[in-house]
Amino acid sequence: MKLLKNDISKFEKLYRVAFLNSLSGFKSANLVGTISKEGKTNLAIFNSVIHVGANPPLMGFLMRPVSVERHTYINIKETNFFTINHINKEIFNQAHQTSARYDKEISEFDVCGLTPEYTQTIKAPYVKESKIKIGLKFLEDQEIKSNKTIFIVGEILEVILPDKVILEDGFIDIEKAGTITISGLDSYHETKRIARLSYSKPGIESKEL
Amino acid sequence: MKLLKNDISKFEKLYRVAFLNSLSGFKSANLVGTISKEGKTNLAIFNSVIHVGANPPLMGFLMRPVSVERHTYINIKETNFFTINHINKEIFNQAHQTSARYDKEISEFDVCGLTPEYTQTIKAPYVKESKIKIGLKFLEDQEIKSNKTIFIVGEILEVILPDKVILEDGFIDIEKAGTITISGLDSYHETKRIARLSYSKPGIESKEL
Repeated sequence: MKLLKNDISKFEKLYRVAFLNSLSGFKSANLVGTISKEGKTNLAIFNSVIHVGANPPLMGFLMRPVSVERHTYINIKETNFFTINHINKEIFNQAHQTSARYDKEISEFDVCGLTPEYTQTIKAPYVKESKIKIGLKFLEDQEIKSNKTIFIVGEILEVILPDKVILEDGFIDIEKAGTITISGLDSYHETKRIARLSYSKPGIESKEL
Repeated sequence: MKLLKNDISKFEKLYRVAFLNSLSGFKSANLVGTISKEGKTNLAIFNSVIHVGANPPLMGFLMRPVSVERHTYINIKETNFFTINHINKEIFNQAHQTSARYDKEISEFDVCGLTPEYTQTIKAPYVKESKIKIGLKFLEDQEIKSNKTIFIVGEILEVILPDKVILEDGFIDIEKAGTITISGLDSYHETKRIARLSYSKPGIESKEL
């Protein structure tokens, strides 16, 4: 089937949103933890977290326009800190529930049944039930002019993870850690490794590692 | 294990790159197709493609700094068009091979064994062997100041996909289409659905769809 821009624009709104959210492929499944300057915690699911750079170590994610109140955004701007916590099979129901629209006085940790956890380094709550957790300091936000979404970039200050999932070349076996993946807005998937392939060079076929 | 910024900065370079590239979670697996104004095709694997918006329909991806020649970037700026093609289990070896550094005169389609395919709408090559293909017009690029990477945004003008993978609510079953996911820089994974969950509302537990 071939669909043109005009066909897509005629889709019913929720149908269009479901369709377009499926198009980018599989997505990362993370919970972003923040705290307000008054000390109220916030937790929100994001499927747009991506690697931004290794030197300095940076991660980023895309946030919808702040035309409505975005608690995650407000907290990051107030405190300069946030955490990224991998979602695993044991907590995907609770993680999904954080996407409901709660008032700012309500902490998603409380109502969704997840546990905040703190370290000395990061002024934002981690999710205790998550296996791989990253603590970041806010660095910059870039507005995408086309639709006023905001790409938020943070510097990695701390990583908490099980020893046994780090392989000898530095690769983290996130599958072994139980990390899952998302497609569309609401579909959760576990994974099964097909292969790791060696670094590509012209004229040389990559081998399985 | 808890690692601080200082610990990570002491990692050997390739170890650090492998480690940090694993941290964001599972990634989308896509091939970006472009063509130069002289008509030379280019194909490159990207694991940073994300959904940007549904109205207008937008997708984006992060590109490394253009301090070295980036053929994909040059072609997009010259022609204003690019394609995004899902990677499936049948072509992940060829897709991985596109990451080798070929000269600009060499087309990754030829050397990696993938087939360019064209439509009337998009002035860039699709990958024939891909099942889900998106044709886009370049809209904007935003430089991430922290490390000079570039976030590229395009508007979706065309989508080509099998009829049977579109469900009745608009969700595309990309797992059924054979789309795979990436972790780190070189690990390819197939997926198995755990559940789709209904839209979250405060106080109401989400149900499986």
